[in-house]
Amino acid sequence: MNCATVGAVTQAGRRPGGSGTRAAILAAAREQFADKGYGGASLRTIAAAAGVDPGLIRHFYGSKDDLFAAALEVPEEMAELMVRALTGHPDGLGERVLRAYLAVWEDPAMAGPLLAVVRSAVTSERAAERLRTLIGARLLAEVAPHLGPDGDVRAGITAAHLMGIAVSRYVFRVEPVASLDREVLIGVCAPVIQAYLTGPLGRN
Amino acid sequence: MNCATVGAVTQAGRRPGGSGTRAAILAAAREQFADKGYGGASLRTIAAAAGVDPGLIRHFYGSKDDLFAAALEVPEEMAELMVRALTGHPDGLGERVLRAYLAVWEDPAMAGPLLAVVRSAVTSERAAERLRTLIGARLLAEVAPHLGPDGDVRAGITAAHLMGIAVSRYVFRVEPVASLDREVLIGVCAPVIQAYLTGPLGRN
Repeated sequence: MNCATVGAVTQAGRRPGGSGTRAAILAAAREQFADKGYGGASLRTIAAAAGVDPGLIRHFYGSKDDLFAAALEVPEEMAELMVRALTGHPDGLGERVLRAYLAVWEDPAMAGPLLAVVRSAVTSERAAERLRTLIGARLLAEVAPHLGPDGDVRAGITAAHLMGIAVSRYVFRVEPVASLDREVLIGVCAPVIQAYLTGPLGRN
Repeated sequence: MNCATVGAVTQAGRRPGGSGTRAAILAAAREQFADKGYGGASLRTIAAAAGVDPGLIRHFYGSKDDLFAAALEVPEEMAELMVRALTGHPDGLGERVLRAYLAVWEDPAMAGPLLAVVRSAVTSERAAERLRTLIGARLLAEVAPHLGPDGDVRAGITAAHLMGIAVSRYVFRVEPVASLDREVLIGVCAPVIQAYLTGPLGRN
């Protein structure tokens, strides 16, 4: 959605607070945070990119920090899906977790925002801090207790391995992982995720 | 090294082509490419950050693209270390590879440049393309043939897992992986890397 479109919508008398406008603001925010980092993005440039007045963003989201939190909502949705997968029955857990994770990254509605959040977190310490808190609070606190005494290490290493698959396959798109058949990838990695989550941990 | 230092060195009559100046240019280039992406960084801003004349950068490195290639040199050095580790004897291969990888990320001289390259590759398609080529050419082409028929998948999945550990531990610094004792981390992950490199692959 560009300035002209938003202008037309507004002129047609529709509320500028429609979900299309909010989506345009969040999309512009993710793009600006990803490109310029938290410090470099401003409500003014985000408003310009979304084709709305900065006052409207303040009205919907409050401060830049609140907008940033709203822009991170997709990972929170993802975290919820992952928590559900991770706390399921131990049988076939590795495969279910890996399938849920790949499905999120392969859903176009989630992949774009996710990628923007990863970009922000890699380039901005503030964004990294938010992602840390999100992963820490949602995944480790809710998942770890289900995984026994070393649950935090199991959850953390699993998250690290999943992150590596996503970075390789969807962010850097390094071959052969980028175009590896999904079922082959699951066949190779699900047993490892299963072992990290439920098997004997390490050599000791 | 800042402008004043470089200026003083030049005034003292030392060649501006000393390794200190080159290091300052590369450091400034990595920072600018990481912050602004390949497209946003310019020889002019890099020169200003390094405290040298843009002509000097052109003299040393040629074009912006050549400078970018030079700024990626650390990963090439890392790739060489990893190739050496990955093509060693199969016994204890997983542990040696993981130790070599962690050692690179824990070496302050390499970690900074590596982080800058990761930042660039996440935010700039051109940088991602270079990293893909580097990983593809060095790791997959040189390592995969040592790993048998599925060598490319073994090398690729191993690289993905290692990347995930680095992103988790050194880039996003997500707990508990970020401060997990190095020997515990090796104890947990080395057997998996060993299995990816030399064990039965997947469930088939």
